[in-house]
Amino acid sequence: MVGGSVPVFDEIILSTALMNQVISFDTMAGILVCQAGCILEQLNQYVEERDFIMPLDLGAKGSCHIGGNVATNAGGLRFLRYGSLHGTVLGLEVVLADGLVLDCLTSLRKDNTGYDLKQLFIGSEGTLGVITAVSILCPRKPKAVNLAFLGCPGFAEVLKTFSTCKGMLGEILSAYEFMDNKCMQLVENHLRLSNPVKENPFYVLIETSGSNAGHDEEKLTNFLEQVMSSGLVTDGTVATDNTKIKMLWALRERITEALSRDGYVYKYDISLPMEKLYDIVLDIRSRLGQSAKSVVGYGHLGDGNLHLNVTANSYSSSLLKAIEPYVYEWTARHHGSISAEHGLGFKKKDFIGYSKTQEAILLMQQIKGTLDPKGILNPYKTLPSSSS
Amino acid sequence: MVGGSVPVFDEIILSTALMNQVISFDTMAGILVCQAGCILEQLNQYVEERDFIMPLDLGAKGSCHIGGNVATNAGGLRFLRYGSLHGTVLGLEVVLADGLVLDCLTSLRKDNTGYDLKQLFIGSEGTLGVITAVSILCPRKPKAVNLAFLGCPGFAEVLKTFSTCKGMLGEILSAYEFMDNKCMQLVENHLRLSNPVKENPFYVLIETSGSNAGHDEEKLTNFLEQVMSSGLVTDGTVATDNTKIKMLWALRERITEALSRDGYVYKYDISLPMEKLYDIVLDIRSRLGQSAKSVVGYGHLGDGNLHLNVTANSYSSSLLKAIEPYVYEWTARHHGSISAEHGLGFKKKDFIGYSKTQEAILLMQQIKGTLDPKGILNPYKTLPSSSS
Repeated sequence: MVGGSVPVFDEIILSTALMNQVISFDTMAGILVCQAGCILEQLNQYVEERDFIMPLDLGAKGSCHIGGNVATNAGGLRFLRYGSLHGTVLGLEVVLADGLVLDCLTSLRKDNTGYDLKQLFIGSEGTLGVITAVSILCPRKPKAVNLAFLGCPGFAEVLKTFSTCKGMLGEILSAYEFMDNKCMQLVENHLRLSNPVKENPFYVLIETSGSNAGHDEEKLTNFLEQVMSSGLVTDGTVATDNTKIKMLWALRERITEALSRDGYVYKYDISLPMEKLYDIVLDIRSRLGQSAKSVVGYGHLGDGNLHLNVTANSYSSSLLKAIEPYVYEWTARHHGSISAEHGLGFKKKDFIGYSKTQEAILLMQQIKGTLDPKGILNPYKTLPSSSS
Repeated sequence: MVGGSVPVFDEIILSTALMNQVISFDTMAGILVCQAGCILEQLNQYVEERDFIMPLDLGAKGSCHIGGNVATNAGGLRFLRYGSLHGTVLGLEVVLADGLVLDCLTSLRKDNTGYDLKQLFIGSEGTLGVITAVSILCPRKPKAVNLAFLGCPGFAEVLKTFSTCKGMLGEILSAYEFMDNKCMQLVENHLRLSNPVKENPFYVLIETSGSNAGHDEEKLTNFLEQVMSSGLVTDGTVATDNTKIKMLWALRERITEALSRDGYVYKYDISLPMEKLYDIVLDIRSRLGQSAKSVVGYGHLGDGNLHLNVTANSYSSSLLKAIEPYVYEWTARHHGSISAEHGLGFKKKDFIGYSKTQEAILLMQQIKGTLDPKGILNPYKTLPSSSS
């Protein structure tokens, strides 16, 4: 996405694939300690057998390593419920630039002895150290999962439905995703998936995870009656069995695939205050007019995280110039982040100034200089060079 | 507790009490932005009026400032449910040692643009910068709160009750506190509170917070039937009305007060793997024998956090020598933390080596040197001096 893990010049590639052992799992507290090369999906299977789940889930789960997830501060589908890795990662083992092993691999929920050094490495994209082991807090496996797929007549209704949902589904809400009708058309046309509800300008996918199936269904039914009788939602379908749950999730999860079949894709992953989340899609769509094929918006609405994607028949530098830096300026003007979960990597490092102040960038460079004075760890990435 | 905010030599005291304004509150996302001198209880009232609560709650809420809470990475009573401030604090404004204002006061849930600098200041006890404003994520106010106060015949039963509770109360569990019978005797004798259940070696206080009172009561009833029929719990009482809820919480919250009436108090706040949590109390009690008046254990069991307290008629250096460094050595041997939530301050800075490696301490000192080269921020605190 941003070229964070791609060698661009003279880098040496380091693989942690063989460091794939679980070190320990505390079944009382739900604390997993494992090596960095463990694959997320395999870890999830391991803890599921012990009645827990991993606190994060993402499309790439079948291949991504937990060490990479932590190094890039991965967000994903369970973020709304279980929060950021800054909260769920309890400890790390990290090899520093000079070869010293920094052992912060504690498996305690609370430890206020000095600075919380592990935080530095979460989301630093491998530029401050190489994560070799991770200690992470796992939630209990939910006994019941329900899904609702709803059609909304406008973005204001998507927001009001979210607010109603937070009040009525409260502690069992585990995902609130949205997609616009253009996304639906792409998955219909390119992937032959079918829209399970009436055509609407927006669609919302709501997942609940709880410990009592009967209670959760009752809460969901009450919520659906409320949003349908008040006109926030015009049509909807629910799923409790695994096949239909997967079918409905596919509509949201396979948007990326549908986009790649639509043409060359310009991808943006931004955070904005929730009320402004869709304005940028409308603005870019009208700005680009006929020069773009599709301009779509979807994402983790509950986290204020929009995936804005533009497709065209082929790459064109003039189209790119029409999008950038306009999209970054727009985001900065509304106090958003130009990279909500994808990081900066190689492609976006020089745009950091749209989301961070000069003082902050300078301090990051000082920290980089302290931890990696020779600049040998994931060079050319994340931060602009000091002179810029 | 550790003398983190107490001047010891030539320090200048800085008060943020007049910086007590709320800057903004986003009622859709539940994000509060405020100045550092706001009092926690007043913030909680402010967001409660808008149907939210603060993600942390502690005994000192009536006087403590949110800036101080963040600087010390306060834990408290809601930690089990809403997690650490490293996860709930979204942004900070910090004045650095050279007077520069570091503006990381974002109010976004996700922002992966460069290093997450704010994390450095959370829990650094004011030694890296002065926090002047905070952005924090607030959960929705629960519609129903229930309390159960239970008697357990042994510590193994306290642990099994916790495990059962995590499975059956799941997402509505908001506190799991425990205290030993010695604590109960102290609150009975010194404060004239009465034990609401049969006398037992241990007591557990369980709080649930949820969005549907009927569902929560049903879950709690099912859970109580399970733990009482299996003999994990021998007696219990529940509370749904505010008066009884406060009365039951007082038994747990006023232990500190009862201890201070018992004599001079030696206080330890440690994290341990849950299974080992009470072993240290038994060990210290037998080690000290008649030289101590009371040796008690209580705390946030769900977080693996024990408050171990020893009282005596007056301070004695020989008793102190019998406790320290023995208590720290014991904790280190079992991979615990010698300060779970209280920090290191002035009193415990030289004990950091029991919980952190030499490499980690060295890196902390390097970071301190980078951010505060003249050592003017909360001097003599948190870290041992570089030569040690």
